Amino acid sequence: MADQDARSPVGIEPPALSVLRWAEPPEGPAVVLLDQTRLPSQEVELVCADVPALVRAIRTLAVRGAPLLGIAGGYGVALAAARGEDVARAAELLAGARPTAVNLGYGARRVAEAYRCAKEKRAGRGQAASAALAEARALHREDAAASARMARYGLDLLAELLPDGPHRLLTHCNTGALVSGGEGTAFAVALRAHRKGRLRRLWVDETRPLLQGARLTAYEAARNGLPFQVLTDSAAGSLFAAGEVDAVLIGADRIAADGSVANKVGSYPLAVLAKYHHVPFVVVAPTSTVDLGTPDGSAVVVEQRSASEVTEFTFPRPASDGAEAGGSASAPVGAQAYNPAFDITPPELVTAIVTEEGVISPVTGVGLAELCARSSQVTIS
Amino acid sequence: MADQDARSPVGIEPPALSVLRWAEPPEGPAVVLLDQTRLPSQEVELVCADVPALVRAIRTLAVRGAPLLGIAGGYGVALAAARGEDVARAAELLAGARPTAVNLGYGARRVAEAYRCAKEKRAGRGQAASAALAEARALHREDAAASARMARYGLDLLAELLPDGPHRLLTHCNTGALVSGGEGTAFAVALRAHRKGRLRRLWVDETRPLLQGARLTAYEAARNGLPFQVLTDSAAGSLFAAGEVDAVLIGADRIAADGSVANKVGSYPLAVLAKYHHVPFVVVAPTSTVDLGTPDGSAVVVEQRSASEVTEFTFPRPASDGAEAGGSASAPVGAQAYNPAFDITPPELVTAIVTEEGVISPVTGVGLAELCARSSQVTIS
Repeated sequence: MADQDARSPVGIEPPALSVLRWAEPPEGPAVVLLDQTRLPSQEVELVCADVPALVRAIRTLAVRGAPLLGIAGGYGVALAAARGEDVARAAELLAGARPTAVNLGYGARRVAEAYRCAKEKRAGRGQAASAALAEARALHREDAAASARMARYGLDLLAELLPDGPHRLLTHCNTGALVSGGEGTAFAVALRAHRKGRLRRLWVDETRPLLQGARLTAYEAARNGLPFQVLTDSAAGSLFAAGEVDAVLIGADRIAADGSVANKVGSYPLAVLAKYHHVPFVVVAPTSTVDLGTPDGSAVVVEQRSASEVTEFTFPRPASDGAEAGGSASAPVGAQAYNPAFDITPPELVTAIVTEEGVISPVTGVGLAELCARSSQVTIS
Repeated sequence: MADQDARSPVGIEPPALSVLRWAEPPEGPAVVLLDQTRLPSQEVELVCADVPALVRAIRTLAVRGAPLLGIAGGYGVALAAARGEDVARAAELLAGARPTAVNLGYGARRVAEAYRCAKEKRAGRGQAASAALAEARALHREDAAASARMARYGLDLLAELLPDGPHRLLTHCNTGALVSGGEGTAFAVALRAHRKGRLRRLWVDETRPLLQGARLTAYEAARNGLPFQVLTDSAAGSLFAAGEVDAVLIGADRIAADGSVANKVGSYPLAVLAKYHHVPFVVVAPTSTVDLGTPDGSAVVVEQRSASEVTEFTFPRPASDGAEAGGSASAPVGAQAYNPAFDITPPELVTAIVTEEGVISPVTGVGLAELCARSSQVTIS
């Protein structure tokens, strides 16, 4: 079983990360998150006992990553149902918490739909809430299974593209267990390569401004014993020039119908560098990331975030007990910043898109639509 | 006069920065630096009373930037002479303080040569020390004059390349008054554009890992009233894709005989992006940066710096009084980092090189050699 394969790997493995869990009473009902803003120095759980708390956690990036946001959105709706609140309103609030990740709205709406169906079948409020929670749990399980399938498809693809032995892979942002119900998207491919003795080096872009690469991917890489090195995002150019990158592997926050990929800012420059150096640029993302309602890259709304993320360093966040953490201004007071959270890579720069339903290469709108048609997740939505 | 032009600009201007000065007794003999590691939050002078102190200041980047390093190297040798120390040995120590910037060795050796010539002419130790100091001062003045000429040539070039009105310029690292005896290299062009009403926007790459863009270029831009915004280095891709960059202007730490440009890491990815988007990529650097003894990019020694620059945030540096400043680990303890200080941009990606002797475009080894032959600075060395 795909899910078991991901969770029962060969060799010595660390215990699985508890990234997001549902808590029943008396602890809950609540959605309990590993607070990703405190990693890697602190592993602290954040208990979201209502939807506004979860929306805050999403906005502050305590929980993040496209697939995991979908799961969080789903459990958030189940939480509203368990609390006897307005489920449709909760789904709307959660779907709108961050504009770019399509999975968030997908997860929230899917669970809201399960609740609505149960109510239509004259279920009581408690039964409908149970149906919502069951749907959120199904989404969670499906995502873990999708992770394992993407890892297999992705590594098979690398074997085809790069037959010459162990790979030097470059990745951006964080795409591992911290973003997923399973082991992630792009990172899951690297992890599988490592387990199969086929990873020579994982190059980890630090991923400014929020340093998800240095803080989170490095944390997951170290935890799993991968051979890795962190680099500033702009040092990737030197690696390409030196022939030290065999492939780029990234995730996606939204894939438009034409195959344009919205992902963490910094992905597009890597795609251009990869093209210039004839290095494969591979996107790994579940079909739930594909939004056939967004025709192309120009239709994607890119979230613009606060200037302070660029002009101040505040990692890790000050602890809630008031203890001072590191953090200071890097730019002069009042300096403005341009801070898009994502960028768009057009399909002609993407060598392949790896999903849980298979791989498309070259990337075309037709190929993407066919792949999505195979996915039960997309037909449900 | 070129020098006056740079120092007496039209309009309301802030007082010139005192970036590096020679101090006579009783304060000296000493080289007094504005400690650039403390900017933008603190303007603190650092007194280097001997050569080892100056070498430390160079290594810790308290003083930095190719042209200014040349001046610092020159004054450093003058300091050794004033202290009655071994001048040849001081020149060697200074030249070796950082491997990539050619100007450093150029400045140190030039002043050592002036000292040696004076001694050959049977000057006493005091007279020879005076000759060395005079040479360092000449180097300082020449650099200021070179700045002003580069600014004029650079802006004329932009007018040719971009006839459609005010420019949106993107720059990387810091290339202003903080790196120069005058107003700098690439930044001086943007500053002149601003003074002439021809700057629409200066996009300032923050320039990881040491944030010279966010800390220093933004400081100089704000000080001079330029319209600017800071961005993470990898957000530049989004600006190119959106057509928001009319030209890239950078400096250089060393230019090889074939026109390959060694500059702050992150320059090469910008060059690739500029090429892909048909945007001019312009290098502004004095001829003292050209090293005809380095045949091509592969012969440039690229300084590899400490992993902690990538994995920890320590800006500004803790004050010498022991007060705590911001700073914390961003990556897990023990994470390795790939941290080259520079990268190499091959001549085919460089639209033009602007020097104080004129502009070459396209960039060829022959053109570069001709330009250098015109420069008295290079023939002296």
